[in-house]
Amino acid sequence: MGALDEGHFNVELENGVNIGGCVELGFEGGESESPAIEDAVRVLLLGLGEDINREGIRKTPLRVAKALREGTRGYRQKAKDIVHSALFPEVGLEYRVGHAGGAGGLVVVRDLDLFSYCESCLLPFQVKCHVGYVPSGQRVVGLSKLSRVADVFAKRLQDPQRLANDVCKALQHGIKPAGVAVVLQCSHIHFPNFEAAFLDSNHQGWIKLLVTSGSGVFEDEKADVWADFLSLLQFRGINMVNMHPNSSVDQSWCPSHSFPKIAPANLAMMSAVGSILQSLGEDPLRKELVGTPARFVTWLMNFKNCNLEMNLNGLVRKRRDSLKPNGDVRRGEEHFCSELNLSFWSQCEHHLLPFHGVVHIGYYCAEGVISIGRSLLQSIVHFYGFKLQVQERMTRQIAETASSLLGEDVMVVVEANHTCMISRGIEKFGSNTATIAVLGQFSTDSTARAKFLQSIPSSCQPGV
Amino acid sequence: MGALDEGHFNVELENGVNIGGCVELGFEGGESESPAIEDAVRVLLLGLGEDINREGIRKTPLRVAKALREGTRGYRQKAKDIVHSALFPEVGLEYRVGHAGGAGGLVVVRDLDLFSYCESCLLPFQVKCHVGYVPSGQRVVGLSKLSRVADVFAKRLQDPQRLANDVCKALQHGIKPAGVAVVLQCSHIHFPNFEAAFLDSNHQGWIKLLVTSGSGVFEDEKADVWADFLSLLQFRGINMVNMHPNSSVDQSWCPSHSFPKIAPANLAMMSAVGSILQSLGEDPLRKELVGTPARFVTWLMNFKNCNLEMNLNGLVRKRRDSLKPNGDVRRGEEHFCSELNLSFWSQCEHHLLPFHGVVHIGYYCAEGVISIGRSLLQSIVHFYGFKLQVQERMTRQIAETASSLLGEDVMVVVEANHTCMISRGIEKFGSNTATIAVLGQFSTDSTARAKFLQSIPSSCQPGV
Repeated sequence: MGALDEGHFNVELENGVNIGGCVELGFEGGESESPAIEDAVRVLLLGLGEDINREGIRKTPLRVAKALREGTRGYRQKAKDIVHSALFPEVGLEYRVGHAGGAGGLVVVRDLDLFSYCESCLLPFQVKCHVGYVPSGQRVVGLSKLSRVADVFAKRLQDPQRLANDVCKALQHGIKPAGVAVVLQCSHIHFPNFEAAFLDSNHQGWIKLLVTSGSGVFEDEKADVWADFLSLLQFRGINMVNMHPNSSVDQSWCPSHSFPKIAPANLAMMSAVGSILQSLGEDPLRKELVGTPARFVTWLMNFKNCNLEMNLNGLVRKRRDSLKPNGDVRRGEEHFCSELNLSFWSQCEHHLLPFHGVVHIGYYCAEGVISIGRSLLQSIVHFYGFKLQVQERMTRQIAETASSLLGEDVMVVVEANHTCMISRGIEKFGSNTATIAVLGQFSTDSTARAKFLQSIPSSCQPGV
Repeated sequence: MGALDEGHFNVELENGVNIGGCVELGFEGGESESPAIEDAVRVLLLGLGEDINREGIRKTPLRVAKALREGTRGYRQKAKDIVHSALFPEVGLEYRVGHAGGAGGLVVVRDLDLFSYCESCLLPFQVKCHVGYVPSGQRVVGLSKLSRVADVFAKRLQDPQRLANDVCKALQHGIKPAGVAVVLQCSHIHFPNFEAAFLDSNHQGWIKLLVTSGSGVFEDEKADVWADFLSLLQFRGINMVNMHPNSSVDQSWCPSHSFPKIAPANLAMMSAVGSILQSLGEDPLRKELVGTPARFVTWLMNFKNCNLEMNLNGLVRKRRDSLKPNGDVRRGEEHFCSELNLSFWSQCEHHLLPFHGVVHIGYYCAEGVISIGRSLLQSIVHFYGFKLQVQERMTRQIAETASSLLGEDVMVVVEANHTCMISRGIEKFGSNTATIAVLGQFSTDSTARAKFLQSIPSSCQPGV
């Protein structure tokens, strides 16, 4: 536990357990043995009102434990070993004034995709990492080691500035160059809650933070070498305008801190999260972690399996009756309508990790009938989002409920970023999942489908 | 060996060795035990004229063996196990006409970054993979499994069309859905040679191929469901214009096939590559692999440690004399010049994998003196590129040689994509490395450096 207090960095470097080939391969072999985490996840699922024996959730405790162990494997890795295995002699300039090769001359690796776990709320956050160093002592380090070392510290419970500092210190210590610079572009999912989301749909997107850390010749933020480094990022299209200098990040960036406090009633759930922290090798009493169980449980309780279904069904029935006072409308009298980019938040029931994105709904509306309000459709989307879900089911449920309201011809497309696609072994940054439900006419009429699909705006790499 | 012939797919699925947790974690534990591959790599290094005991290369055989074993771990994985561990019951529509949830309704995972090894030339190629399926039988598969299955087949020696077919068949077999569709956007590095590159600098970039594969409802390329699938890709900004229908790819896309045949004289090297194929579990007599050793050796021999240095030095000295007939020029009479985006190819000496990109050279040129020709600088860049290299050394060497020609004030920036950053454990797609050498005035004058760096055009995600 003490390994994660103030002095954890040196302790890790000097006394960490040698896990041999695992450092190189970046994965642990075999099944994770974390019964304490699995038990804790069962408590959380029960607190959410779930049946822990239902198919789909039955193995969720195992999956969560494996993902958490893997996602925090950095606690069991030593940055020093990684660097020392790949230091190569490399001469500097001969007969000339200046810096190059193994003696000066900046080396920068840009656009390394990483993810880490937010120590404030236990949700993963994405990191675009840029690392540079100025070689000295006639030696350079293998380029991939800059990435591996950054990954060792990302795979822990972190805060962006500490992550940048940890990476910087470890590289300075391991390579002993003239200096090291680290720039991290971090993206954290928003922290909406069920009720607020119904009132305000503008929560889509990410909280972004740019942090830097420098050592040696980079210690002075105004040093010329920083200007060189930032120039090399700028012509890769990396915008440094919103850059926070080291000192200005006084309070946590995590959106859970600005969230209206709801005292989670469920002490068993909070204690379960505490036991997860302990199982990962963390000290739940470390000051940054003291409030984490409450914040994580607050996040999770947004997705409690609640009984609002009846209310929503009542609302839908009432609205439908008011829309169709004159009985059925014939096909020829209808025109195509759509509501695009309705945002949603959900929680993957397989991994207890967020997925979020947008819903597009296409339908036919009778001539003369007032088009259905966007806000009601957004409410339906939120209603089915704020649960433990799978995207396929949510798509079907939204389509069925929308059909109760809009008639039999409905098509729904859901586009989502799944945190479980980046924050586990597969680490597929930038991947995006689309699901479709087609009801009535849309299931047989490919022209109608094409018309709707073509109306959806291009969304290359949405979100991040 | 036979497992890789015509019927390898079923053999792999039914009789593959169960490697348990390794499939899930995607990595093998421990050190690779491949002395045969290491011996073969030593033969290749000797054939390239290298001293296999020099620091930097000493451990290259071990690194290459580990990378190859890891990069072809798909031979030791079973797609069926991956899918079967994550099939979940999911109902379809109730009381309505159409398709959704676990009974119809397309599910698509887009933009999965993978890499594979080209069976024609043994170089890695990049793959942007899009997978879709139509659920049936009231069940869906965990989304991440689409990525894991694709990865099992990518991590083998492949051809794009076969890779697409393998993934498609495995998912059809494992999920038993109404149909599976696979679209792969593949990018293969060009295949220049030393001499051609000096004559033609337009080789920069990638050879691209888009292939598709479909089963079940996707078997007919003209089926409506394909239009739905492609629409879902199009609004992610994926251009399907250059799409090759399955049947039109008659010959290998690999650029080595259109390469002027140079019979590699070194039979020992060819035999070494054959032994690598065998060690990976491949059959060197499989018809697609028969020519692979010759093609790989042809590629490799571009980077032979040759003795052209003397010639180049002669050229540089002659040119310099012609440029400075009147002795030294004072600083005030010089103006800033630059040559940007000089392309280069090189081979990473740590991993025997290509890295390539662009070189930018800034310098001061005396008033009235004819600016140095781009083609001579391009020749210098190629000269130092076509070797076993590290980027830091190449940057220094180009700067030193350019300085012999252009005077003491020279700045060189090299931007490179390293295949070793994507085709091994770290898999950092989109990462890019920049190195700088600063000579003379540039080493002390940050304004001069900034002026040069700002003249470099933005190159967001170059190459791919």
